[in-house]
Amino acid sequence: MKTVGHLINNRAVALADNTRTTPVYNPATGQASKKVALASTATVEEAIAAAEAAYPAWRNTPPQKRAAIMFRFKELLEKNAERIAEVVGEEHGKISHDAMGELQRGIECVEYACAAPELLKGEHSRNVGPGIDCWSEFQALGVVTGITPFNFPAMVPLWMYPMAIVCGNTFVLKPSERNPSSAMLVAELLHEAGLPAGVLNVVNGDKEAVDVLLRDERVKAVSFVGSTPIAEYIYTTANANGKRCQALGGAKNHAIVMPDADMDNAVNQLLGAAFGSSGERCMALSVAVAVGDAAADALISKMSVAMQPLKVGAYSDSSNDFGPVITRQHQEKVVGFIDSAEQDGAKIVVDGRNPKIEGFEDGFFVGATLIDGVTTNMESYKQEIFGPVLQVVRVNSMDEAMQMINDHEYGNGTCIFTRDGEAARYFSDNIQVGMVGINVPLPVPVAYHSFGGWKRSLFGDLHAYGPDAVRFYTKRKTITQRWPSSGVREGVDFSFPA
Amino acid sequence: MKTVGHLINNRAVALADNTRTTPVYNPATGQASKKVALASTATVEEAIAAAEAAYPAWRNTPPQKRAAIMFRFKELLEKNAERIAEVVGEEHGKISHDAMGELQRGIECVEYACAAPELLKGEHSRNVGPGIDCWSEFQALGVVTGITPFNFPAMVPLWMYPMAIVCGNTFVLKPSERNPSSAMLVAELLHEAGLPAGVLNVVNGDKEAVDVLLRDERVKAVSFVGSTPIAEYIYTTANANGKRCQALGGAKNHAIVMPDADMDNAVNQLLGAAFGSSGERCMALSVAVAVGDAAADALISKMSVAMQPLKVGAYSDSSNDFGPVITRQHQEKVVGFIDSAEQDGAKIVVDGRNPKIEGFEDGFFVGATLIDGVTTNMESYKQEIFGPVLQVVRVNSMDEAMQMINDHEYGNGTCIFTRDGEAARYFSDNIQVGMVGINVPLPVPVAYHSFGGWKRSLFGDLHAYGPDAVRFYTKRKTITQRWPSSGVREGVDFSFPA
Amino acid sequence: MKTVGHLINNRAVALADNTRTTPVYNPATGQASKKVALASTATVEEAIAAAEAAYPAWRNTPPQKRAAIMFRFKELLEKNAERIAEVVGEEHGKISHDAMGELQRGIECVEYACAAPELLKGEHSRNVGPGIDCWSEFQALGVVTGITPFNFPAMVPLWMYPMAIVCGNTFVLKPSERNPSSAMLVAELLHEAGLPAGVLNVVNGDKEAVDVLLRDERVKAVSFVGSTPIAEYIYTTANANGKRCQALGGAKNHAIVMPDADMDNAVNQLLGAAFGSSGERCMALSVAVAVGDAAADALISKMSVAMQPLKVGAYSDSSNDFGPVITRQHQEKVVGFIDSAEQDGAKIVVDGRNPKIEGFEDGFFVGATLIDGVTTNMESYKQEIFGPVLQVVRVNSMDEAMQMINDHEYGNGTCIFTRDGEAARYFSDNIQVGMVGINVPLPVPVAYHSFGGWKRSLFGDLHAYGPDAVRFYTKRKTITQRWPSSGVREGVDFSFPA
Amino acid sequence: MKTVGHLINNRAVALADNTRTTPVYNPATGQASKKVALASTATVEEAIAAAEAAYPAWRNTPPQKRAAIMFRFKELLEKNAERIAEVVGEEHGKISHDAMGELQRGIECVEYACAAPELLKGEHSRNVGPGIDCWSEFQALGVVTGITPFNFPAMVPLWMYPMAIVCGNTFVLKPSERNPSSAMLVAELLHEAGLPAGVLNVVNGDKEAVDVLLRDERVKAVSFVGSTPIAEYIYTTANANGKRCQALGGAKNHAIVMPDADMDNAVNQLLGAAFGSSGERCMALSVAVAVGDAAADALISKMSVAMQPLKVGAYSDSSNDFGPVITRQHQEKVVGFIDSAEQDGAKIVVDGRNPKIEGFEDGFFVGATLIDGVTTNMESYKQEIFGPVLQVVRVNSMDEAMQMINDHEYGNGTCIFTRDGEAARYFSDNIQVGMVGINVPLPVPVAYHSFGGWKRSLFGDLHAYGPDAVRFYTKRKTITQRWPSSGVREGVDFSFPA
Repeated sequence: MKTVGHLINNRAVALADNTRTTPVYNPATGQASKKVALASTATVEEAIAAAEAAYPAWRNTPPQKRAAIMFRFKELLEKNAERIAEVVGEEHGKISHDAMGELQRGIECVEYACAAPELLKGEHSRNVGPGIDCWSEFQALGVVTGITPFNFPAMVPLWMYPMAIVCGNTFVLKPSERNPSSAMLVAELLHEAGLPAGVLNVVNGDKEAVDVLLRDERVKAVSFVGSTPIAEYIYTTANANGKRCQALGGAKNHAIVMPDADMDNAVNQLLGAAFGSSGERCMALSVAVAVGDAAADALISKMSVAMQPLKVGAYSDSSNDFGPVITRQHQEKVVGFIDSAEQDGAKIVVDGRNPKIEGFEDGFFVGATLIDGVTTNMESYKQEIFGPVLQVVRVNSMDEAMQMINDHEYGNGTCIFTRDGEAARYFSDNIQVGMVGINVPLPVPVAYHSFGGWKRSLFGDLHAYGPDAVRFYTKRKTITQRWPSSGVREGVDFSFPA
Repeated sequence: MKTVGHLINNRAVALADNTRTTPVYNPATGQASKKVALASTATVEEAIAAAEAAYPAWRNTPPQKRAAIMFRFKELLEKNAERIAEVVGEEHGKISHDAMGELQRGIECVEYACAAPELLKGEHSRNVGPGIDCWSEFQALGVVTGITPFNFPAMVPLWMYPMAIVCGNTFVLKPSERNPSSAMLVAELLHEAGLPAGVLNVVNGDKEAVDVLLRDERVKAVSFVGSTPIAEYIYTTANANGKRCQALGGAKNHAIVMPDADMDNAVNQLLGAAFGSSGERCMALSVAVAVGDAAADALISKMSVAMQPLKVGAYSDSSNDFGPVITRQHQEKVVGFIDSAEQDGAKIVVDGRNPKIEGFEDGFFVGATLIDGVTTNMESYKQEIFGPVLQVVRVNSMDEAMQMINDHEYGNGTCIFTRDGEAARYFSDNIQVGMVGINVPLPVPVAYHSFGGWKRSLFGDLHAYGPDAVRFYTKRKTITQRWPSSGVREGVDFSFPA
Repeated sequence: MKTVGHLINNRAVALADNTRTTPVYNPATGQASKKVALASTATVEEAIAAAEAAYPAWRNTPPQKRAAIMFRFKELLEKNAERIAEVVGEEHGKISHDAMGELQRGIECVEYACAAPELLKGEHSRNVGPGIDCWSEFQALGVVTGITPFNFPAMVPLWMYPMAIVCGNTFVLKPSERNPSSAMLVAELLHEAGLPAGVLNVVNGDKEAVDVLLRDERVKAVSFVGSTPIAEYIYTTANANGKRCQALGGAKNHAIVMPDADMDNAVNQLLGAAFGSSGERCMALSVAVAVGDAAADALISKMSVAMQPLKVGAYSDSSNDFGPVITRQHQEKVVGFIDSAEQDGAKIVVDGRNPKIEGFEDGFFVGATLIDGVTTNMESYKQEIFGPVLQVVRVNSMDEAMQMINDHEYGNGTCIFTRDGEAARYFSDNIQVGMVGINVPLPVPVAYHSFGGWKRSLFGDLHAYGPDAVRFYTKRKTITQRWPSSGVREGVDFSFPA
Repeated sequence: MKTVGHLINNRAVALADNTRTTPVYNPATGQASKKVALASTATVEEAIAAAEAAYPAWRNTPPQKRAAIMFRFKELLEKNAERIAEVVGEEHGKISHDAMGELQRGIECVEYACAAPELLKGEHSRNVGPGIDCWSEFQALGVVTGITPFNFPAMVPLWMYPMAIVCGNTFVLKPSERNPSSAMLVAELLHEAGLPAGVLNVVNGDKEAVDVLLRDERVKAVSFVGSTPIAEYIYTTANANGKRCQALGGAKNHAIVMPDADMDNAVNQLLGAAFGSSGERCMALSVAVAVGDAAADALISKMSVAMQPLKVGAYSDSSNDFGPVITRQHQEKVVGFIDSAEQDGAKIVVDGRNPKIEGFEDGFFVGATLIDGVTTNMESYKQEIFGPVLQVVRVNSMDEAMQMINDHEYGNGTCIFTRDGEAARYFSDNIQVGMVGINVPLPVPVAYHSFGGWKRSLFGDLHAYGPDAVRFYTKRKTITQRWPSSGVREGVDFSFPA
């Protein structure tokens, strides 16, 4: 069985016989087909050392030259898209079209990084005083690191290192050990695009590796995406160790369905937003809040019909709508939340608990599930399920709906379905959530804006990718300059020898 | 003896008989003339509650209306400048002209806050997809707090709350308990300018008050300026309690004096930068690094002469150059550093250890001190003295000078004296310091740039005041919007009744 | 009878006996109470010379110092607001509350100019190549001029010179000879605020003065607001004489009233937008396009009722809603348009042609007029009336309404009344008009955005005031810098004498 | 003999028998090898019509999709670089390495255009009043045109249409009829990259074609690069016809050589800047102003030596340093200027008037020429020579040198050679030139800054390429939005059927 290793200094690391490993599963079959090495402290330190050694020359490489590599990287990602999607599908389970979509969003972050010469411009003031100028530069930090989750194994690393690198930093990436291969493949393509050795290094691993990255003083910044408890640990540990950190955590994304919504459109949109990628997205729409029973009844009725043709299965059949969840344990957890909702009195309108997928009987599948009558005291409401489960809560007014959202500990994404300009503006202005959709169920900002939730969905001041990432991966240096007079300009002796 | 209290909801807080207090000294006389109340947990919580109550209405006040108050505040600060300088002088000891200068820098931050409508503009993208728009807003955080130091009792609070408030936040300020009165006076002026009650609250206190501010979950952000150990405590505690934080700490600011420097100019500049405000500035230039013995000898010789007319004394005599240090303990500490340098083999060229100030024999005075032959292993070099002491280190090359600066744990400010464009550019590009001067000894960025050091001089991602403060005091919300078709536009039934 | 003269070099110009003059009327009484001098070529050249002489020192004054004068100017404008409004009312005829509103918008442009240090920041790029930096500065142009109209005698000059001046230019203003006094008064206040002599000069005059300004090669830029034929003349003449120019012309602003509009709100809004300031605003809403007869009938019916209490009269009675038009000739022109509409078959629903204003029988009054059944072939539709006349056009669809607006030669402002998000977005995206309101009938951009129409409503690339004005009043200079090596930094001979 | 035609709607236009043509020469051989068609009015109108037809769909294509084509265009330009350089060399005469360099600068403008989604962001303000939002969009203009010169046949078109197109405009390009083929080839590559037909059209032609472009009302903007008399004609004609225009004209670029300059470096830099591309660059450094005779003598002496190995010849031999000038007439004109300098008393130090190029005896060659003792009254000083001629003027002070530059009618580029920070800053601040180099002889701004001279070197407000081009190719639309209340949000009847 193949073992996925590490990439340091643009070389595969030789694995010792006693290397710790963990299996990598194909979630559609339930079988492990590979192992992944879990980096020792020494290996992570070697990666950090490689990044540190590469830093001085890379930092002095003009931004335009750094961006030139990103242009080539984009070409290579597009050329290798199907190959990457295949690797993602095999280890994550998502269907090819979904993996291609994920990759495309990642490529768009590479495109944004191509604009580095523009994005890195500082602010220049002539004559802050007589003959005195002042300007700010946004300089690189040094060695920075990214720790990324299983659910977007291709995209989330591309949120981080293209921008970090193009800003002049060097990078150590630790991808999820559940599906490490796509990150390795993509990193190889970046080297093929011309990246000097040591600028990007990939180590696979578990908490041991993470803790080295959080504590080594050569690491200057940490970007993390994962669950909220881990995000909080990462954030406080990184900060206590003198690093800047942005740590993105969990979510519970609500859609308000107003009485005036175009209901067919809303149902169509919710379908993908709730069940796409098996709901394993931090922007998945997992709660629909219907305002008024008329809206709720229409929603439940139309949604039940729309869910019937949904097809769950293996990544390799592109007619499938979504695939399995990531592990056996996670499958059990999702089913447990459906059970608990039922026990708490909610109504399972469409039940995805026992899907039969021919030929994939051992896969970690959960079918699309619709639950009506959910209330805010249920565990299934309070927690992030991260599965293909849409819960419907019924309320009597838009204010009640908004209060519910504002009371939740998470504040990642949210959406309203309405035709009404006033409702939309009131909602977007007052909702305590970082990413808001108006008739857009997955309001993931495009790559030239920034991604980030509020409340316990994000720890840190600056959001991920887009303009905020430029600020996260650089520090401001402000120079104030005055030149003494009586230099060569007035030095007429030079020019008039008597 | 008068007791300085608290300002909550635009009302002076009635002080209970058992209120804890601490004396406030006039450092020129060494006598306590007032007491300051030390807020209890309940009092701080009352201030936070006042700020929280004021928040919803204030957040919804258009930025231009908020800025209108800042315009009036600026007028009132200018009208009351001498009165404020008097209060600063009495409790801090700095001479009136210096206090006026400090206030002026604070007023410039108010001026910058007047530009809030411009500064708060978000980014708008039409057609991120067909018919889809996306934009970012920079929304207020809620209740935020500032904890400020004794050395700039008027200016540092003005780095913080004008911008915080104009961004839509409400504020609790905890000034230094050494000299609380100017902050109280200035806060009253802001209310006179029209600020609604509760938007700015001032509590005086010690660690008890600070810890409430760091832990209360209603507080969303903390700005701090002080020493590095406290800054680090503030930062990690605030972060662990889910707040964003920027904490500015100590400094050891070096000036490199190159062989081609205009030496008379350099000496003139260093004089104010080293001894102004008794060196109690986080941007004070406390180390001169002379490149080559010729430069060092010239520097020592000219500086010794230039220091002779320096006059130290009470704030009220504006012919004085600088005043006492803040406390008896601090006076002893500064003298202790001079002693230790001497014991370590440095040469005390000008000795300010026993100044005789007629009529102020009990004041906390230290005279201007010049020390030659300092080396990097001396305690007086390693630590921040925060007194009127300039140490000279001799090196053989510019690279040696830069290495010394880069090796120091602090990275607040630094400066080079040279005529040479190449030396200046190499220095500013490669020095690991956040604020860099080219022939500018105190490179404090103007109010429309941002203030911040590197390394252990600042904890946090964003610098103080200027454009960074706008980002620190706001959080990004990103809205993605698409409108469903088949609305009133195509609803021809409305317009063509058959 | 008093003669209004000129202000050059902060001195009133002595008027020769043979100075040409023209009378200044009080439009409410129809009587001339003053004369205004019409500057000769020599006088205008003297003003230009004063501005040119003041330029070098002013250009080198740090932007922050220039802005400091604007802060004081704002204070003085606020203190003198009633006095300015009185002067405006007397010569223009607009009611005090309206004149105060006009002035307030002008003051907001002064507030924006206070942000000059921020607005003038250039773009700085480190390492555009190895060791090469590049930055842009926005430098002043030199002497610039503004030629302003009668309808906003206080506001429009403040659109121009505060920003021009704060950018480092010096200025010659030629206000409307119909009502010159407020511009003179305001200019005096700016000098009281500390402006050096010669930086702002005011010359009154007619075409002779204008042509000098357009042709003198010392003048670098021209800002103009007036009618389209003059704007076009100004623009082409200025350009042919090597100056940059922005020339704002006429308008015909339509409001689309959709079937779903909140009709009471729409009527309330239209009332002020159509009749305020007697319709003598380039943003006046003079055409309502009702979509469907139901909307049209409701609009006509409610509007007729709402117009009944409107009170027209002299500026000094603040219970009046609006005042006279500017001249006898203009009064006749407005009435002529109403006549022509009637002759063309439109229905005069409310007729303002013969208002009786007790005590002001000779004033130039026209009452609020509502006309139904207007069609696009009528002269009253094609031309700008610039009087208190609202014409209603009936159409069957929103697309028809939009086509009508897009076909008009002007493209200044427009508005839609609807509740529907989709209608609003389709409208704002596709309408060929520069300033668009969604339920906002006078979509004059706030001072921190920019004002400008499209098509024949504006000649030039950049809009008035706001961020565009910064670009209009500055030119970009781009500096690319590399320092040769082997300078003092490596010159170890200096530091190591053997 | 092949005839180069036109590209309209992505199709080669069939040429009628009576099509007017003009020969295209190979300047190295002096022989015509092709003809180029000169478009009739009808053909140009057809191109405009194609652009107009393509506009609505292209304008509605999301900027990111438009940018995606630019990413592919960049790839194709890089792949076809040698082929393009060959075509440039054949028709223009510049050596391959120079043509490759030109193309590279053009490609960098394409890279900048890839950032369109970032560059097109508008400004968004929440709460300009209670519940009122305002934002600006930068919308496309429609059909725009570019008229480009012979000297950079590949680069200058790429300054224009990539940015124009990515902003949503459609384009008609009229390249120089001297060397039309590279523009045709490059346009084909853009279509290969996926550009829809009609978005870019290329017509070849002479004044007849130009005048159609300047007068047709469907054309909204004109970009031009050429000589000053033509630029002025283009600018005033375009403006008089209601179009925005930027017209870049001639230059006379001076380098000041200070006594402290690193003379070897200065000579090396001047060599390429004066003689590269035969001096046929609007940024060519054609005048060296030496401060003091010592500097002048050293410059002349070292430059004479450095010029000896320069090799002039055909484009195809890459060991050549530069090639012929563009036409026989131009060759004669350049030689005429050398003659006139000699007659006026200047000293021809190195004489390039009769180069013998074996095998290319009929080519339009002029050798590198160095002239000493030039004065400002000579015709050779006053006019732009546009040939491989460096003239040296001797002055006694830097101020005298600067005055000379400021007095010249052109203000395109300039440079200073010095080590001194103060001299550099004084120079860049006070010189009346748009593009300034500090030890950089050809201070052409990088593609993410903007290109433009001052005085009679540029007509228009906005510079070419970079951020200014975004503003030039878009117009600002400002939307102000308020939503009426009492809509669905408060319409509880919807949600609570009793």
